[in-house]
Amino acid sequence: MKNKEEFMQIAIDLAQENVARGEGGPFAAIIVRHGEIIATGKNSVTRLNDPTAHAEVTAIRNACTNLNTYQLTDCDIYSSCEPCPMCLGAIYWSRPKALYFAADKNDAAKAGFDDAFIYEEIKLANDKRQIKTQQINIADKTKPFDLWDKSPLKLDY
Amino acid sequence: MKNKEEFMQIAIDLAQENVARGEGGPFAAIIVRHGEIIATGKNSVTRLNDPTAHAEVTAIRNACTNLNTYQLTDCDIYSSCEPCPMCLGAIYWSRPKALYFAADKNDAAKAGFDDAFIYEEIKLANDKRQIKTQQINIADKTKPFDLWDKSPLKLDY
Repeated sequence: MKNKEEFMQIAIDLAQENVARGEGGPFAAIIVRHGEIIATGKNSVTRLNDPTAHAEVTAIRNACTNLNTYQLTDCDIYSSCEPCPMCLGAIYWSRPKALYFAADKNDAAKAGFDDAFIYEEIKLANDKRQIKTQQINIADKTKPFDLWDKSPLKLDY
Repeated sequence: MKNKEEFMQIAIDLAQENVARGEGGPFAAIIVRHGEIIATGKNSVTRLNDPTAHAEVTAIRNACTNLNTYQLTDCDIYSSCEPCPMCLGAIYWSRPKALYFAADKNDAAKAGFDDAFIYEEIKLANDKRQIKTQQINIADKTKPFDLWDKSPLKLDY
C-alpha cells in the first residue's frame, strides 16, 4: 500500500499535468479509501465554465458518483494545496476521515491564488462584505422549512 | 420588471416544490441578470449523490453553463436561505453583483440545518479542526505553481 507521501505525489503530478495540458489551474486532488484511489479531480474552472470546479469539489463529486453515495465516510482527501473556503465547506459536507494537503496557502498566494480574501470575507457580518448582501424578509421565508419538517419524503443529508 | 420580493418569492416557491417532490432539501436559488431569470438551482444532494449540489452552487453552475462563462458579472443571486460557507465561497468565485437571501441562518438552524458548525471550523487553525488535517510536505509541493507561472497556455480565473 502506498504511503501518504506517495499518494500526495500523485496529486501533485496530476496538478502539473493539468497545467501542462492547459486544462485548468495548478491544483488536483485524489480520494483514497482502504488504500485505493477511488477518484481524482483537477481544477476545471475555465475548461468547463464552472467556477465551482476546483480540484477538491471535482474529486468529491467524482468519488460520490463512483461510490453511489453523498458521504465519503472512511475516505481520505489528498489535495495538492490547502483548500479554499468553498472546497473546505465541500469537504465538511462530504464528511471524509482526513484531509491532507501539500502546498499551503502562503505558497498559493505567492503564485497569485490568494484565498485569504475569501477567508476574511466569510468571517465578516453580511453588511460588511464586499459583495452586496441583503436579507429580503418576505412572509413565506420559512415555509420551505415548515414543509420539510412534516414531509414524509425527506431524506436527511 | 419584477422587484426583489417577487424574485425571492420565486426562489421560495421552488424550494417548496423541491420538498413536495421529495427531490432534496428545502432550499432553492435563482440567478437574475438585467431583470431576467437566467438560471435556477434546487438542493439536489440526495437525488444526485452530490454533497456539493446545494441550491446556490447548482444555480451558479447552471447560470455559467447558460451564459458560457465562469463569471456572473452583472448577475444577482436570490437564495431562499442565507448561504453555507461552501456556497458563500462559490458565490465569491463566481463574482455576482449582489446576494439576496430570505430565511437567515437562525431560521435554518431551527429547521435542523446548522451551518454554524462549519462557519466555526473554517475560522480555526488546521490542527484545531474536527476533520483531521495535516500538511504532507513533499519536495515537489510547489512544482504545479512553478509550471503555471511560465505556462503559455494558462487562463486566469
